[in-house]
Amino acid sequence: MYLYSNIIGTFVFNQNMQIREKILFSKSDLKNNYKKFQENELLNSEEKLLKKFKKIRNLRTDPDEKLLSKVFLVMSEYDKEFYENNLYVTKLQIKDSITQDLLIVQTIGSVNELKKSINLLSKRLREWYSYVLPEVEEILYDHFSFAERIAVDSPEKLMKDFKLKITMGREFSKEDLAAIKNLASTILDLFDEKQEKEDYLEKLMEKTCPNLTEVAGFLTGAKLMAIAGSLRKMVMMPASTIQLLGAEKALFMHMIKGTKSPKHGIIIEHPLIQRVDRKDKGKASRALADKISIAVKIDFFKGEFLGDKLRKQVEDRFR
Amino acid sequence: MYLYSNIIGTFVFNQNMQIREKILFSKSDLKNNYKKFQENELLNSEEKLLKKFKKIRNLRTDPDEKLLSKVFLVMSEYDKEFYENNLYVTKLQIKDSITQDLLIVQTIGSVNELKKSINLLSKRLREWYSYVLPEVEEILYDHFSFAERIAVDSPEKLMKDFKLKITMGREFSKEDLAAIKNLASTILDLFDEKQEKEDYLEKLMEKTCPNLTEVAGFLTGAKLMAIAGSLRKMVMMPASTIQLLGAEKALFMHMIKGTKSPKHGIIIEHPLIQRVDRKDKGKASRALADKISIAVKIDFFKGEFLGDKLRKQVEDRFR
Repeated sequence: MYLYSNIIGTFVFNQNMQIREKILFSKSDLKNNYKKFQENELLNSEEKLLKKFKKIRNLRTDPDEKLLSKVFLVMSEYDKEFYENNLYVTKLQIKDSITQDLLIVQTIGSVNELKKSINLLSKRLREWYSYVLPEVEEILYDHFSFAERIAVDSPEKLMKDFKLKITMGREFSKEDLAAIKNLASTILDLFDEKQEKEDYLEKLMEKTCPNLTEVAGFLTGAKLMAIAGSLRKMVMMPASTIQLLGAEKALFMHMIKGTKSPKHGIIIEHPLIQRVDRKDKGKASRALADKISIAVKIDFFKGEFLGDKLRKQVEDRFR
Repeated sequence: MYLYSNIIGTFVFNQNMQIREKILFSKSDLKNNYKKFQENELLNSEEKLLKKFKKIRNLRTDPDEKLLSKVFLVMSEYDKEFYENNLYVTKLQIKDSITQDLLIVQTIGSVNELKKSINLLSKRLREWYSYVLPEVEEILYDHFSFAERIAVDSPEKLMKDFKLKITMGREFSKEDLAAIKNLASTILDLFDEKQEKEDYLEKLMEKTCPNLTEVAGFLTGAKLMAIAGSLRKMVMMPASTIQLLGAEKALFMHMIKGTKSPKHGIIIEHPLIQRVDRKDKGKASRALADKISIAVKIDFFKGEFLGDKLRKQVEDRFR
């Protein structure tokens, strides 16, 4: 007597390799147990089987796994079930592969794309509004405050506020002006959406990778993870690769054409690197990338929180 | 006695080139009269002067314009006024140079940029939502309906509507789902804004260049004008250039590397060109560009409406 479990169910074979007893799995069984398949554990339904058929004696599990599975495979009556259950489990596996860090990658991606859209439309707004009040463009150099003032205030109000006596702009009909104001409002909506995504990103980062967030900051940390592709991929990278994430082009130019090798990728955005002298930026990047590499590993393997200590170590070194 | 007018005012010089009488212009005078400066007409203030100083006899206007202006320029007492008035008139000229067709160029530009932003963010939305319900992406291939369904309906509703039994997507927390739904709403806002700009563009086109709009359609017409830069620039172009607007890159490649010469630029978007056989597309583009060239000239010089006739002529030829 042999006991054999696979994706369809648990089977008891006799010496002649004929099925004596079986318990077939339902899809809900699979849903609950497919992780155990992964880990090659026996399914709990086996216990059920044992209880159900107490009379079965001399039961040996896994005497010749290969033989049993071969025997099983030639029994075409189970083909359809085998195919369907396999497909189902594969889908469950895909479901499970969507981890929290992928949400971070998507969110930082959307932040970047919102930023691009804002820049694109803000440039258009500035060019367009220069027909109304060209003088304002130089005063409000920040895209957000520019869009905000245009959306809310009339040209007359702006002229008064900025003490402009004469403008080179043309007088606009109400309708022509409304078209510009609407564009400004749309840009403000995009700014709102970007802010909302950044807030959400911060929460995600603090929950999923508290150590990375503490050491690199949530925005830089998320950008690094997005370039790496996932937290898992980042864990497998040496610190020197993390240091250069975002400087791929410069690195390839270095390798192909022998230009100077880059010292830092987007890690340079980190306030710590921003603060140190130019000549120390390379060193500081390397030290920070080291700590980030450690932080990422702690996060991935759910270790205890050490982010503050790691951060302090780099900060103390480059004070 | 000589009478001399310039941007500051009207002056009466005696034989010794000394100022006998003067009327200085105020800024409001300038505002009303600067077009006459443009056309080298005398200012009406001259008449005022004549009335004011009836006693002045033997008055000759413009005996030696060059000499008078030279004499005037060495009198440094008027320097400041000369500079200020000139600046003022220049500003008025700039004001006047903003014509309706520039609004069209800005509007079509904003439509293009909104389209770019929509594409950018829609791609992100599709990638992100594929973690929730990857199966929907293939069904809703249109960006608008995709964003609309995501923004409004829950994943459960979508699964029911599209008869999906199992999904490879993960279950999302309410907050994680909200982040995606908000992105979808933002995309819908951009679609709204784009529609609004297209409506506004259509009105502008019909008002400013009714003939071009009738022949080329408002969207293609506006795109052509945007590439040309302005209605004025388009008027000065030969029909063959209009035919190739938007195919600059292919044309330069033809000129430099001897690749095949392009037969049409964005004119190919026109429904007429879309309809004809492939081998006739070149001919039809040329014929259409001819009529567009005529339409643009009528619009620029405010001629009577002939757009419908021009359009019919090409349509009859390529039926």
